[in-house]
Amino acid sequence: MADKYDERKLQKACGVFACVTAEGISEADADVANTICLGLVGLQHRGQESAGIVTNCGNEFYSHKGMGLVSNVFGEVELKKLKGNMGIGHTRYSTAGSSELINCQPFVVDTIYSHIAVAHNGELINAKSVRDKLLRQGMGLSTSSDSEVITQLLTARPPCGEPEGPDWVARIKYLTNQTQCSYSLVIMTKDCVYAVRDPYGNRPLCIGMLKRTCSSYSPQLKRFNSLSDVQSRLHSQDEVLSWIASSESCSFPSIGAVLMYEVNPGEIVQLTPKGPKSLGIIPPAKTDDLPAFCIFEYVYFARADSMFEGQMVYSARQRSGIQLAIEAPVEAEVVSTIPESATPAALGFSLQSGIPYIEVLTKNRYVGRTFIQPSNRLRKLGVNKKFGPLSENFRGKRVVLVDDSIVRGNTIGPIIKLLKQAGAKEVHIRIASPPLKYPCYMGVNIPTREELIANKLSPEELASQVGADSLMYLSVEGLVNAIQSGITLQKERKIGHCTACLTGKYPVELEW
Amino acid sequence: MADKYDERKLQKACGVFACVTAEGISEADADVANTICLGLVGLQHRGQESAGIVTNCGNEFYSHKGMGLVSNVFGEVELKKLKGNMGIGHTRYSTAGSSELINCQPFVVDTIYSHIAVAHNGELINAKSVRDKLLRQGMGLSTSSDSEVITQLLTARPPCGEPEGPDWVARIKYLTNQTQCSYSLVIMTKDCVYAVRDPYGNRPLCIGMLKRTCSSYSPQLKRFNSLSDVQSRLHSQDEVLSWIASSESCSFPSIGAVLMYEVNPGEIVQLTPKGPKSLGIIPPAKTDDLPAFCIFEYVYFARADSMFEGQMVYSARQRSGIQLAIEAPVEAEVVSTIPESATPAALGFSLQSGIPYIEVLTKNRYVGRTFIQPSNRLRKLGVNKKFGPLSENFRGKRVVLVDDSIVRGNTIGPIIKLLKQAGAKEVHIRIASPPLKYPCYMGVNIPTREELIANKLSPEELASQVGADSLMYLSVEGLVNAIQSGITLQKERKIGHCTACLTGKYPVELEW
Amino acid sequence: MADKYDERKLQKACGVFACVTAEGISEADADVANTICLGLVGLQHRGQESAGIVTNCGNEFYSHKGMGLVSNVFGEVELKKLKGNMGIGHTRYSTAGSSELINCQPFVVDTIYSHIAVAHNGELINAKSVRDKLLRQGMGLSTSSDSEVITQLLTARPPCGEPEGPDWVARIKYLTNQTQCSYSLVIMTKDCVYAVRDPYGNRPLCIGMLKRTCSSYSPQLKRFNSLSDVQSRLHSQDEVLSWIASSESCSFPSIGAVLMYEVNPGEIVQLTPKGPKSLGIIPPAKTDDLPAFCIFEYVYFARADSMFEGQMVYSARQRSGIQLAIEAPVEAEVVSTIPESATPAALGFSLQSGIPYIEVLTKNRYVGRTFIQPSNRLRKLGVNKKFGPLSENFRGKRVVLVDDSIVRGNTIGPIIKLLKQAGAKEVHIRIASPPLKYPCYMGVNIPTREELIANKLSPEELASQVGADSLMYLSVEGLVNAIQSGITLQKERKIGHCTACLTGKYPVELEW
Amino acid sequence: MADKYDERKLQKACGVFACVTAEGISEADADVANTICLGLVGLQHRGQESAGIVTNCGNEFYSHKGMGLVSNVFGEVELKKLKGNMGIGHTRYSTAGSSELINCQPFVVDTIYSHIAVAHNGELINAKSVRDKLLRQGMGLSTSSDSEVITQLLTARPPCGEPEGPDWVARIKYLTNQTQCSYSLVIMTKDCVYAVRDPYGNRPLCIGMLKRTCSSYSPQLKRFNSLSDVQSRLHSQDEVLSWIASSESCSFPSIGAVLMYEVNPGEIVQLTPKGPKSLGIIPPAKTDDLPAFCIFEYVYFARADSMFEGQMVYSARQRSGIQLAIEAPVEAEVVSTIPESATPAALGFSLQSGIPYIEVLTKNRYVGRTFIQPSNRLRKLGVNKKFGPLSENFRGKRVVLVDDSIVRGNTIGPIIKLLKQAGAKEVHIRIASPPLKYPCYMGVNIPTREELIANKLSPEELASQVGADSLMYLSVEGLVNAIQSGITLQKERKIGHCTACLTGKYPVELEW
Repeated sequence: MADKYDERKLQKACGVFACVTAEGISEADADVANTICLGLVGLQHRGQESAGIVTNCGNEFYSHKGMGLVSNVFGEVELKKLKGNMGIGHTRYSTAGSSELINCQPFVVDTIYSHIAVAHNGELINAKSVRDKLLRQGMGLSTSSDSEVITQLLTARPPCGEPEGPDWVARIKYLTNQTQCSYSLVIMTKDCVYAVRDPYGNRPLCIGMLKRTCSSYSPQLKRFNSLSDVQSRLHSQDEVLSWIASSESCSFPSIGAVLMYEVNPGEIVQLTPKGPKSLGIIPPAKTDDLPAFCIFEYVYFARADSMFEGQMVYSARQRSGIQLAIEAPVEAEVVSTIPESATPAALGFSLQSGIPYIEVLTKNRYVGRTFIQPSNRLRKLGVNKKFGPLSENFRGKRVVLVDDSIVRGNTIGPIIKLLKQAGAKEVHIRIASPPLKYPCYMGVNIPTREELIANKLSPEELASQVGADSLMYLSVEGLVNAIQSGITLQKERKIGHCTACLTGKYPVELEW
Repeated sequence: MADKYDERKLQKACGVFACVTAEGISEADADVANTICLGLVGLQHRGQESAGIVTNCGNEFYSHKGMGLVSNVFGEVELKKLKGNMGIGHTRYSTAGSSELINCQPFVVDTIYSHIAVAHNGELINAKSVRDKLLRQGMGLSTSSDSEVITQLLTARPPCGEPEGPDWVARIKYLTNQTQCSYSLVIMTKDCVYAVRDPYGNRPLCIGMLKRTCSSYSPQLKRFNSLSDVQSRLHSQDEVLSWIASSESCSFPSIGAVLMYEVNPGEIVQLTPKGPKSLGIIPPAKTDDLPAFCIFEYVYFARADSMFEGQMVYSARQRSGIQLAIEAPVEAEVVSTIPESATPAALGFSLQSGIPYIEVLTKNRYVGRTFIQPSNRLRKLGVNKKFGPLSENFRGKRVVLVDDSIVRGNTIGPIIKLLKQAGAKEVHIRIASPPLKYPCYMGVNIPTREELIANKLSPEELASQVGADSLMYLSVEGLVNAIQSGITLQKERKIGHCTACLTGKYPVELEW
Repeated sequence: MADKYDERKLQKACGVFACVTAEGISEADADVANTICLGLVGLQHRGQESAGIVTNCGNEFYSHKGMGLVSNVFGEVELKKLKGNMGIGHTRYSTAGSSELINCQPFVVDTIYSHIAVAHNGELINAKSVRDKLLRQGMGLSTSSDSEVITQLLTARPPCGEPEGPDWVARIKYLTNQTQCSYSLVIMTKDCVYAVRDPYGNRPLCIGMLKRTCSSYSPQLKRFNSLSDVQSRLHSQDEVLSWIASSESCSFPSIGAVLMYEVNPGEIVQLTPKGPKSLGIIPPAKTDDLPAFCIFEYVYFARADSMFEGQMVYSARQRSGIQLAIEAPVEAEVVSTIPESATPAALGFSLQSGIPYIEVLTKNRYVGRTFIQPSNRLRKLGVNKKFGPLSENFRGKRVVLVDDSIVRGNTIGPIIKLLKQAGAKEVHIRIASPPLKYPCYMGVNIPTREELIANKLSPEELASQVGADSLMYLSVEGLVNAIQSGITLQKERKIGHCTACLTGKYPVELEW
Repeated sequence: MADKYDERKLQKACGVFACVTAEGISEADADVANTICLGLVGLQHRGQESAGIVTNCGNEFYSHKGMGLVSNVFGEVELKKLKGNMGIGHTRYSTAGSSELINCQPFVVDTIYSHIAVAHNGELINAKSVRDKLLRQGMGLSTSSDSEVITQLLTARPPCGEPEGPDWVARIKYLTNQTQCSYSLVIMTKDCVYAVRDPYGNRPLCIGMLKRTCSSYSPQLKRFNSLSDVQSRLHSQDEVLSWIASSESCSFPSIGAVLMYEVNPGEIVQLTPKGPKSLGIIPPAKTDDLPAFCIFEYVYFARADSMFEGQMVYSARQRSGIQLAIEAPVEAEVVSTIPESATPAALGFSLQSGIPYIEVLTKNRYVGRTFIQPSNRLRKLGVNKKFGPLSENFRGKRVVLVDDSIVRGNTIGPIIKLLKQAGAKEVHIRIASPPLKYPCYMGVNIPTREELIANKLSPEELASQVGADSLMYLSVEGLVNAIQSGITLQKERKIGHCTACLTGKYPVELEW
C-alpha cells in the first residue's frame, strides 16, 4: 500500500508472544527472554511504537518496556535481567490509548493470588461501556488503554466465586461475558500462560513448539488437528525446549520453532511446562454467528510468510492478483508494483495476464518516518525522496501498477506523476482489494469515513484525480473467494471473515 | 549479495555531493543545506558510518558532521545553522582510517587564501608513500585518513608558485602528480566548488541541475555531450536554482534535479553560480592507459536507478542475469533471489531461461546489524532471524537462487539449509559475477586473499560445502560484455573498467 | 552527614508541590507548569530519583514524568505541553516501590467523576494490611508503591455514599480511617487541589501565595494564624497570581512566593482560585496523641532556609551545635565540619566553645554518585576522590569535626585518616544528634538495626574503630530542647516530634 | 564570585595532566587511564566543556575525547580501551577556538618519528602571527585552536636538524622562539612525556609521585628543591607506581599521589619510567623579565587546596580577606559571603575585624547552567532560583558581604535585593581583589574593557547602582603583598606575578 509510507494510517494493532519452558529443560537452554525478544522482532511489522517483555521467575515477575523498536528497547543488559522459565511479550501500535510509556504492554498487576501479566492484540468494540462499569465500581483506571480494562476484568474475582484458588477459566468467561471482540490475549500467572482468542477469532493466534534440533520449518498442521494430537505424538519428536504462542507463525523460523496449531475462535489454550492443553471453546453469545477473522490480515497486515487457516498469506495475495487480472484486465507492456508489500499480487497479475513483471521503482530504505521536514520546495517532492524511477524499464511503455489497497489516496498521485515524468506512456492502477469505506472498531486504525477516498470518489473520478489512465478495484466476492479457496482447515470448523471495513457489516452490534 | 547482511565486508567507499546556488537565486530558494542533506540520503547506500556537510557563507564555513546515518546526524536545528549559497557533503564507510568522528568528512582546513573543504570517494593506491612524504616535510597529520593526505596536498602551494592568488588547477595537477588513483573529489573554496575525477575515472561523479519546476527526470545525456552544450542551451530551460555534483545520479530525482553530464576521467569541473565549466582533462601519467571505472559499481555498489556511461545500472545487472542463464543453464521450476540486491539479475535469468520468477524469502527489515547477540542456540539460527521462508512457493520444487556475488561464502550455506528445511527439493546457486579473488586497494573493503572463498574452493567444492545442488559463476568476459554492451557514450571517448578484484590486473602499479 | 555521599542510606522521602491560579489571572501570568517546575527544583534535595508534574486544563489532565533530576526531566518542550490553571508536582526518592518509571508520581487515575492526580510524601506504617484489603476486593494493583494504594483509597467511593457528586472530605476521612501515618498529600481533582497532612503531622506541608510584585520574603506567620486571616487581609495585598502548597517553604523565594501558613496535623486545606480554605482537622484515632513531626527533618532532611513551626531550620541546627558544645566540650584549636550539611551546627559549636571555625576540606562537586568505579587501588582512596585536605589550616592542630548524624559509620573513618595523613594532630568527632538505633517506617530509608553502627559500638568503641581521638553524640533531651525552644506557634497548638529512630517509640503501633 | 553563576565570563582556561608508569610496575598496578581520569576530575574546576585522554601502548596511541564533564565522557567501556603505560589528559574551557569536538584536546598527530599527543593550558599572546606563518608555509590548519598551532610548531623539524632522531629539546626551544607565553604543556611521544612551562610561568604546572601505599598527603617541597633531590631520595621511599604531572596539586590526594616539585618557568621536565628529570630552563627572550604567574590563579581559578610557590591557595585568599578588613573596615553585625568561592576571604575578614561569620544564603546545587528559561516573570527572579535567604541570620542586621571579584557587576545587585527583601538592614560589599579593568590575552576569558563594570563605574557609583550601602575593593599592592608574603620558595628563585587584568601591564608586548 503506497499510502502507508508517509501516512501511518492503516496501522496494525499489535503482536503478542509467549514462551513457556518445557519440563526438564534448564533456564539456560530455554533462554526465555531472548526467545521472546527475537519472536517480537518477527512480529515487529504489527507495531513499532513500543515493546515489552515480562518474565516469571518463581514468585517474581521481571518486566522491561520501552518506546520504539524491539531492538532499541532490548539490549543485552535488559535481557539478562529478565529471568525465569516463562514469559510474555508485546509489540504495539496504538489503536486506543495515547502514545506513552504508561500504555505500553504487557500490563502487570498484583492480584490477591499472584501477579498476572497481560498482553493484548485487538480493540474492544464496546470499550466505553465496559470502562464505565469499572469506574462506577469505584476503581481508578490509570491509562486510557483498552488493555487495562481487560486486565482489570481478568483480575476481578468471578461472580461464581473461587472456592479453591483462582479459577482462570471462570475469569476469562466473565471477560467474554462483558465484551465479545476483539482480542487475542496471552495471560501469564505465576503458574502458566493462557492463550485466548475472542469468540469471533477476529485477531490471529497460534501455538508452536521449539525443539533443540530443528529439522524442518514446514508447517504440518494436518498432523495436529487438535492439541491432544500434539500431546500424543510428542514421544516421537526431538526434545522440546519450550512452547510458544504468537500472533503470527512468521516468528517461528526466526527462533527455530515450528507451527503446531492455530487457536480456535473462543478457545482457551493453557501452556504449562507439560505442553499446551485446550481448556475448551467459548462460543459467541449469538451462537449461530460465523467466525469473523479480519480479512485485512490477509490483504495487508500479516507478513507474507505467515500461515492462517492452513494457507500461506503470500499465496492468498497471489490469488488476489490473479483474480484481479481476471476482473480488471488491461493492455500493457509491464506489470509492476510499489515496493514492497504488493509484490505477490503483482506477480499473480503478471502470471494470469502474461504481461511481464519488472521493477519500476527503487526504494530508498534510509528514508524513514522521522526524517526531517525540509523546505517547501523539497517537501513537495514527496515520494521522490523515497522512490527512484528505474526509467529505462518503462520509458515509452504502458505500466500496470498493482497495489494492495487505497486508504486516503494521496500517495498514488505523486507516484504516477513520478513515473510519467520519467517516461511512462500510460499508468493503470489495479488494487488487489475492494474500496475501503467503513471504519474499523476492532483494532485497525482506519481513518474516519470522510477521510476514506473511496467514500468521496468513484474509481473513474479517482483515476482522473491521481492522473491514472485507469483505476480498478477487486470485488468483495473476488477477494473473499481468492482467500477462502486456499483454506485447508478440517471440515467441521466454520469459516468466516470480517469484511466490515469493506461492507459495513460488523460482527457484533456497535454500542456508543 | 547474501554475504553482506551480517558481515559488512564488501563495503562501498563513500558518497560525495555538492550544491552551488545559481546566479540571482535567493538563499531561501536554493536551500543548499537541505538539498545536500537529501542528496546524501540518496547516496546513503554508499556509506552509513558517518555523514557531514560544510557550507560556505561569504568568508565563513559552517560545518556539521557526525557518526551514523544522515537522518541521525542532521535535524532541523543542525541544518538551519548551515547557511550559505554553496556547500559540499559526504557520507562515509571507512576503507582507510578508523571509525571515529575525527575521520569524518568533509575535511575543512584554513589555508593562506581561504578555508577549503574537501570530500573524497576512493582510496589512494599509493597512500603510504605520499603520506610519508608529507611527514618527512615536518607536517603532523591528525587522522589516519587518506582524505587528510589529499586535503594537505591540495593545500600545499604548487611548485610553480601562485603569483596571482590561489591557482587551483595547478594544485590539482600537483595532487595528480603525487597520486593517480583513486579519487572522486568535491572541493569547496570561498568562491566555488571543483568536481574532480582521477585520471582513471575509478569512482563515479556526475553533474546535475536543479530547476524550479521539474518536468522530467529522464536523463538526456545525448543533449549534453559537453558542458558547453549545457551553457548554450540554458536559455531555453526553466529557471535553474542550483548546480549539483554527485557520486551517483540516483540522488537527483529525490531533490528534483536532472542529470546533465558525467565528469570524464581526469576532468576538473568548476561549479560557480554561473554554471558548470570544464577546466580541462588531466590524462593518466601513462597516457595510453584506458579508463578503469570500477566494474563492481555496476555489479553491487551503485543503486539500480543510477546512470553510468549512458546506461541504467539495473539494465546492466539484468543483462548479467541473461548472460548467466546462457552460460550456466539449469533445469528448475522456480528462479528467485535473496532479497534484495540481485533481483534484476534474477529477473534477467528468468527472462532468458523461461523459468518463472517468484519470491522464496521474506526479509525482516527490522533486523539490523546492531542487533543484540542472543544465546548460542539462537545465534546459530543465523539467517533465520533475517529471512522467513515462503515455503508454499517452493515446497517440492527445484530452485535457482541468483545472487550478485560471493565474498566469504559463509552466508549462502545457511540460506540453502533454510530453504531445504522448508521443503525445497534442489537449490542451484548462480552468481551474476565472476569469482572474487584479489583485494581492492582503490576504495572497496574486500577481505584479504585468504578470506576470499573463491581462492580456497572451486565452484564444485563450494557447492558441496554450502549444500547447493550446483553452483556456477558468470565469466569475466560475460560480465564485461554484459556491461559494456549497454554503454552509449559518444564514440570518441575511451571505455575501460577495472576488474582487478577478478583478474588481479590493477590499473597502476602497486607500491608498498 | 558524611555517610551520605557514597551510601545513599538515610534518604529523604519526597517533595510535593501544588499551584492554583488565582481568580481573574490569565494562564500566561500564572504560568503554572513553570512555577511548579521551579518549585520542585527548590525541593530537589528531598528526592533525586524521579520528577513529575500533572496539570489540569478543563477536563484534560496533562502529565509528564521521568527518571532523574527535575532539570533533566523537564525542558521547554515538555513544559509547554503542560497547560492549565492548576497543577501538582512531585520529586521522589523511593522508600517503598522499586526505582522505575511506573512508580513515578503524581499518579493520575480516571474515576467516575473526573481524573484525579495524587502526589505523596511519606510512607504508610501499615502498608501491607491496607494493600491486602484492596487486593482481596479483586482489584489489580500495578505498582509496588504505597502511593498507588493511597490513590485507590481516595478513588474508592466512601462507605457513606456520595448523593451529590464526589465528597472529598468523606473520601479523605475514609483514607484516614484505613491508615494514620505518614502522608502529606496534594490531590488534584478537576476543580481544585486538596493539601492534606496526616493526623500526626509526620511530614511537613505549608501554604504560600505568589504575588505579582514581591516586596518581602520574610515569613510573617504571626499575621496568619489561620487561613481565615489570610482571606480577610487579602484586600490589602498586592495582586495574588496563584496559591501554592509545598513540602517546604525554601521553595518559595525561588518562585517569588511568600509563606502564609503551615498546614496543621490532620488538616485538609482546599486550594481554589478564590484562595485557600481549611475544611477541618481530622484528629488521630487516639485523640490524646501528640503530633509526631519527624525530628530528622530538622536534623538533616530539610533545607536550612525552610521554616517549620515558626523557626528557621538553620537556627535549630545552630542551637544543636551550641548544646553539643555544652554537653561534649573538648580542647582544640580548630572547629570544622565535613562539607556541607553540618555547617550551622559547627558554627554553633564554635560560638559556644570559642574555638575558631575554619574549613579543613574542599569538596569536589564534580564527583557524583554515578561516577565510574575505577581499579581496586583507586577505589580504596574513597573519600579522597571527593574531598581535598586544606592541610595548612590544621597541620599540627587539634580539630573538632562536627557532623549532623552517623548512620553506618563507614565514611567517618576515611575522613579522619585523610585529615591525619594531611597533618592533623588530633581529630575529635562531635555529632549534633543522638545515636540512630531504630528503623523508620514512615518515609525515611534508614537501614536495618543491624546496619546501624550505634547498635553495634559504643561511642568509645566507634571512636577507636574510626581512629578518632574522641567521639560524642548529642543527647535526645538536648536535641529535643534545642529544637523545641525555638518554636513560635500559637499557644493552643500542641507540639510533639517523632523520635522513633532515636528512642524506638513509634507514634502508632507497628503492624506486620 | 557571584558573577560567575549565570555569566560564565571569567572562565578558567584548562587543566592538563600526565601519568607515566614507573619502571618495573605492571600495567594493571599503574592503571594509567583510570588515574588520569580521576586526576582530570580533580582539575574539573578549570574547564567543563570537554575532556580527553590519550594513552600510549607501544606504537599505538589510544584516544578518547568528548564534550562535557569528565564523568560524562569517560565510563568503564571507554577507559578499558585506553591501554598503555603512559598517557596525558586534558579538560577544557575554550578561550580560543570554538566549542566543538574538533577542538577538544589532547591533539594527536602522526609525525615522521612517531605519534605525539599534546595538551595545552594557556593562550598564545601572539596567536595570530604564528598561525599566519604556518599558513604561509602551505599548511592547512583544521581547527581554530591555538593548541593546534602549538602542536604543529612542535611537530615541525627544528631548524638545526635532527641528525640522530627527534630532538625534543630543540623542538621546544623552536616553539619558545616563536611564542613566549602562555602555555603549560604536557607532550607525549612514543617514549616519554615532557612537562613544559612557558618562560614566564604564566600557568601552573607541578610534578607528583604516586606510591603504592600513601602515608602522607602533606606537600614537603622543601625536601625536593630540585628534581635531582627526588632521584637521590627515592631509595628511602615506598614503591613508586607512577610519575604525575598536573596543572594543580589538588588532584593529587584524589589519586593517592603526593606533590614533589613545581615546574619552574621555562623548564622542561621529562617523565620516563625512571622518574622525572629536568632538561634545563629556557629563560624569557628578555632575560631580565620577572616571572609572570597569573595572580588570578590565586584569587579565583585554582582550587583552595592547591599549593603554588610553597603556599596553600586557601591561605593566600584568607590573607587577602585580612588585608581587606584592614584597608576597608566597616561596622556591622555579620560577615558573610555568597557561596561558595569567597569563604576563605570572608573568614579572613571576620578574623581581622572581629565581626562574627555566619551564612546568609543557601545555594541550591541543583540549579545549573542548562536549566530551562521559564517565563519572563520567573526569569526576573534571577538569583532567587539559585540562593535561598537564611533570613533569621541577618534580619535587622548590618551585613558585610565579601566576594572574590566583580566582573560585569550584574549579579551582585539582585543578591543585595534578595538580602534586603529578606530583612537585612544594611549590606556592605567588600571585594578581595582590585577592580578588573583590562582583558587577558593569556588564557582567561575576561570580557572586553567596555563590559568590565570597573571601567564604567567608580566603587561609589557601583554601590549606588547595585543598592549596596558601601562597596570597596582591595588595592593592587594589598593583593600582591597578601599573596607574595606567603611564598616559601628557595631564595634564588625570582618571584613575579602577572597583574595585567588589574594594571594593564602585560608580561610581553601585545601584537595585533
